[in-house]
Amino acid sequence: MKRPAPVTELIEELKRLPGIGQKTAERLSFYLMRGPKEQAEKLSRAVVNIKEKIVLCKNCHGISDKELCDICSDTRRDHGVICVVEEPYDVYVMENIGDFKGEYHVLMGVISPLDGIGPADLTIGELKAKTETREIKEIILATNPDMEGESTAVFIARMMKGCNVRVTRIARGLPVGGDIEYADPVTLSKSLEGRTEMKFSD
Amino acid sequence: MKRPAPVTELIEELKRLPGIGQKTAERLSFYLMRGPKEQAEKLSRAVVNIKEKIVLCKNCHGISDKELCDICSDTRRDHGVICVVEEPYDVYVMENIGDFKGEYHVLMGVISPLDGIGPADLTIGELKAKTETREIKEIILATNPDMEGESTAVFIARMMKGCNVRVTRIARGLPVGGDIEYADPVTLSKSLEGRTEMKFSD
Repeated sequence: MKRPAPVTELIEELKRLPGIGQKTAERLSFYLMRGPKEQAEKLSRAVVNIKEKIVLCKNCHGISDKELCDICSDTRRDHGVICVVEEPYDVYVMENIGDFKGEYHVLMGVISPLDGIGPADLTIGELKAKTETREIKEIILATNPDMEGESTAVFIARMMKGCNVRVTRIARGLPVGGDIEYADPVTLSKSLEGRTEMKFSD
Repeated sequence: MKRPAPVTELIEELKRLPGIGQKTAERLSFYLMRGPKEQAEKLSRAVVNIKEKIVLCKNCHGISDKELCDICSDTRRDHGVICVVEEPYDVYVMENIGDFKGEYHVLMGVISPLDGIGPADLTIGELKAKTETREIKEIILATNPDMEGESTAVFIARMMKGCNVRVTRIARGLPVGGDIEYADPVTLSKSLEGRTEMKFSD
């Protein structure tokens, strides 16, 4: 049975989104079709707005509705510490924990020779420029603990050598609540390597 | 950290959709934000179109872009057999198997006293009218095999008593490829109840 064109079109567009397959796209389409008209209109407007009203912060490349994002323009934060992440979304994930009080730098990806992405395609040059023009005490490399993320971290750490900036990498180890029995050897090895002194208050 | 309003708005709208929680809504929003502008525009247009261009078929209440859907207007189909389903989406699921050559009747829900939905809120009256004004041989009740679906099927079957229309219910039993060991007792009991004669060609 041929579906009416507007249905097929919506299903096709939804399927382009990550994690949405044929079945989910169908279910969402039929849901929107049965729901109130205002809901579809609001969603439609929100989708367009996110491209029209959101820009990347000119300092950190995180998302913002102004030239400079709320974090970069916040004078109460420590702008001498930069946390380097891969994607704009990672800024929100880090902010969610509420522990970090410095600023961010979004690389807009990772070095990935297989996909033809080299250091020049990322914002690594701008990060380097920050250490040369501003007083930066520490750069925390918070790229993902996978192959591309690790090599990108190594690349940046090497580049910063001799810059008089402390370069650190977030700890890799067993997730809290995890189980040694089910940990993979690489994680376990990293967790051993990154062991810290037990501290007691007395 | 406060997110820019357009981001929060899109996340909120996406969260209204079935099966989409906070995390998925965030991921989709950031994906659309980073993707090309045309993608967001196409999706936005498709969402509005589905409400503007799609109507419910006046005969079966299935979705259509014309007054009468392709199935209801198809003269090659047997309009003496009506398959009764709960939602417009179910029509596609049934059509997908390709075995059914009659027409459909979408109830637009099920009888559910807890949600305040009675027979008058559904298209049950129109189904009855069809049996009175047209030559209907059989009504196949293909509502879901859950509590509301079963009671709705029983309600319709009772209503049709004395109408000289054959009223049937789709079989409930073990799914093909299933395992008796893991079947629930109700399904197993239904599968025993609905057992059929083994037929051999010789």
